[in-house]
Amino acid sequence: MSPKALDYESLNENVKKVQYAVRGELYLRASELQKEGKKIIFTNVGNPHALGQKPLTFPRQVVALCQAPFLLDDPNVGLLFPADAIARAKHYLSLTSGGLGAYSDSRGLPGVRKEVADFIGRRDGYPSDPELIFLTDGASKGVMQILNAIIRGEGDGVLVPVPQYPLYSAAIALFGGSLVPYYLEETANWGLDVADLRQSVAQARRKGITVRAMVIINPGNPTGQCLSAANLREILQFCYQENLVLLGDEVYQQNIYQDERPFISVKKVLMDMGGPMSKEVQLVSFHSVSKGYWGEFHLRVLMLQTVDEIYKIASISLSPNVPAMIFLGLMVNPPKPGDISYDQFVRESKEILESLRRRARIMTDGFNSCRNVVCNFTEGAMYSFPQIRLPPRAIEAAKKAGKVPDVFYCLKLLEATGISTVPGSGFGQKEGVFHLRTTILPAEEDMPAIMASFKKFNDEFMEQYEDHRGYSRM
Amino acid sequence: MSPKALDYESLNENVKKVQYAVRGELYLRASELQKEGKKIIFTNVGNPHALGQKPLTFPRQVVALCQAPFLLDDPNVGLLFPADAIARAKHYLSLTSGGLGAYSDSRGLPGVRKEVADFIGRRDGYPSDPELIFLTDGASKGVMQILNAIIRGEGDGVLVPVPQYPLYSAAIALFGGSLVPYYLEETANWGLDVADLRQSVAQARRKGITVRAMVIINPGNPTGQCLSAANLREILQFCYQENLVLLGDEVYQQNIYQDERPFISVKKVLMDMGGPMSKEVQLVSFHSVSKGYWGEFHLRVLMLQTVDEIYKIASISLSPNVPAMIFLGLMVNPPKPGDISYDQFVRESKEILESLRRRARIMTDGFNSCRNVVCNFTEGAMYSFPQIRLPPRAIEAAKKAGKVPDVFYCLKLLEATGISTVPGSGFGQKEGVFHLRTTILPAEEDMPAIMASFKKFNDEFMEQYEDHRGYSRM
Repeated sequence: MSPKALDYESLNENVKKVQYAVRGELYLRASELQKEGKKIIFTNVGNPHALGQKPLTFPRQVVALCQAPFLLDDPNVGLLFPADAIARAKHYLSLTSGGLGAYSDSRGLPGVRKEVADFIGRRDGYPSDPELIFLTDGASKGVMQILNAIIRGEGDGVLVPVPQYPLYSAAIALFGGSLVPYYLEETANWGLDVADLRQSVAQARRKGITVRAMVIINPGNPTGQCLSAANLREILQFCYQENLVLLGDEVYQQNIYQDERPFISVKKVLMDMGGPMSKEVQLVSFHSVSKGYWGEFHLRVLMLQTVDEIYKIASISLSPNVPAMIFLGLMVNPPKPGDISYDQFVRESKEILESLRRRARIMTDGFNSCRNVVCNFTEGAMYSFPQIRLPPRAIEAAKKAGKVPDVFYCLKLLEATGISTVPGSGFGQKEGVFHLRTTILPAEEDMPAIMASFKKFNDEFMEQYEDHRGYSRM
Repeated sequence: MSPKALDYESLNENVKKVQYAVRGELYLRASELQKEGKKIIFTNVGNPHALGQKPLTFPRQVVALCQAPFLLDDPNVGLLFPADAIARAKHYLSLTSGGLGAYSDSRGLPGVRKEVADFIGRRDGYPSDPELIFLTDGASKGVMQILNAIIRGEGDGVLVPVPQYPLYSAAIALFGGSLVPYYLEETANWGLDVADLRQSVAQARRKGITVRAMVIINPGNPTGQCLSAANLREILQFCYQENLVLLGDEVYQQNIYQDERPFISVKKVLMDMGGPMSKEVQLVSFHSVSKGYWGEFHLRVLMLQTVDEIYKIASISLSPNVPAMIFLGLMVNPPKPGDISYDQFVRESKEILESLRRRARIMTDGFNSCRNVVCNFTEGAMYSFPQIRLPPRAIEAAKKAGKVPDVFYCLKLLEATGISTVPGSGFGQKEGVFHLRTTILPAEEDMPAIMASFKKFNDEFMEQYEDHRGYSRM
């Protein structure tokens, strides 16, 4: 019998590579355990609504009315919806060309792109051109389209932070390009050293790779840091000198859990620098309604902004979904003081963000109270990325079991506690250093128990594998 | 000054190729004319709601309630929503893991996949396994993922009908594969000849191409035909012999405008054939809630079904949007006799489908009444694809203007009448034969005026360019 037309052997090699990165052993094992009836605490993906976070009321009211526009003609509509939600629904419906079921312009509804540009203008203090705003269905799609346009083959390299969010490694593999890693410095609060960047580029060049673009993730995923203005200036200078397209992944810009280091957009830093540079650096930055504290994950509209015309080329196949664009409009243009829904909107937003801030603190403190665990505070985004200092005997045991050491640790954690994390090796890390990533999203009231359960497991694990003749027992 | 990091020159060549196919001259010119204030009749894309089609009430009620689940606790909800919509909303919310804002299983909500499998079972008379159903965000995404998995390089070929929907040529170009055309026979009502298929494969082989998959579009786009069971049997036999993955694009299966040749799914035909073949042919078929008479274009969930395990591999990055999955559930599981909303739902559906049937007839008859125009009846889908027999002098004039002849004709049509069509060359056609594609979607009451305007333009055009010494003036 002949082999199947499409079997694993005959699959596109680039597609095979992508899968290995995404479908981790931890995820599979957690699913198995769940099927067997074990209670799993899924902290492996940031999925707030699945963990009990309630949606914000006002945006949901507006989108529900847009979904069912005949309600607007119903004399009873005011019994279920406040007047400002009704007015907003009418506003957004007037921006569409046939309601939520009609195609929009391929770059998104012009009226919403205008609202996004106004938001960027207010945020940065520099006007933003709606013609350079593109709405796409989700971060992955936007990032993949720009990388697809850039990457022509193995000879094209993209600088990606390590640790990084696997979307980047996956997309670069899929398009057959070369990932050029640069390391974030854990002891410098996951900041980035431009000297290290230069070295990465030089190394890539020696291998015949032309570095064409650079990715930054700010606030960091999985690392949770906010990049400083000084750091962003160095990065922009570097991209200018090296003639790189800069991709600024800023999807967590509204999730900030401290006041010392606020989020600053790379666009603002570039504009502040002024001069010819501010016109010549090709910057594409990403924001999303699906990330951030809204947590509306089904609504993956992305906004791209770019100081160049490159996206005219990449925009052709885009046709973002309309309800998601309305959520985006509401995100950049929320209820204002004096609006009927203002107080409720602010109260709900504050509750979520303040609780996340407390949870970030509980988690960091919890990790730092554990034996051989050190963890930077989650300044932004929604992840904690503690370093787990595995004793040599644990590393040996992992090797014997045929596992990467942090996978070995995370599997044991999963089996013992039901906490489903992602091993640091899934994001990349320096040789011989190990991490795991959790979200900070479990319900606040569950957090102390989860951290106690983690500590119990971890400290027993360390007890078991530590060399009692003195290793790291200071 | 150095060139920009990313300019047109340094773009990925495969991406450049894709754009040429998608961004047509006609579309650009129509947009320009619209900006200048000319009234444009957009029949270039199937966008029913933009042309005035009202959404079906029941699905919109259910999804609005799911968007705003707090309404379900409101004592006044019954004043705006019927009881069956409320029950359905509760049902679908119970299938999610945290409402519309939470990630679902990467293959889609298990409960909706079950409803889809039941629908396929009822449709075909053979049970369908929910484990083989994958929900994706839109037809393009599903088709592109499977083609991405199949195509390893230029040496991999995919059989695609000519004329075809440009998604296929675009995706094959993007992934760097080879499109192997097979021609649909216009005089045989756009049917397909297996002898011609064999010839296409043999020709490809001589060029060193391994044909690995075949695409069929049924009902046809842009050609509007329904494939017969006999034709589908031949195709399946051919795929079995040649060891090809068969991609069955069946997104228009509910849009049928005649009774003689109903839609038959390729899955049913395969199952009817039985034997080892029915187990060994790798079939992936596509359906969508965004196409068809629902016309919910923002809701591009696709359902894939496959008699093989290949999609386990391709499913990893899928995370379909939840409101769209609920629309899909409602499409495969509409109100039943006895339900409060049943009569309204049936009435609304019938109104749309019967009007489309009349419009298909008005359009075909209109085209066939024009000089040098012949047009097969639109049996299904939502397009009309008349052949325009251009006189030699028109072809010459086009050449002088530097235009492909059907582009030349369609541009003149656009300028004269505002009717924005797509030239047949965008879909592929036999050498020396010319077409255009329109949708049958303009409002029924506008149809006679549109066809009169077309006829006036066409007949004058023919008068102008015909050789009055006798060419085709019988």
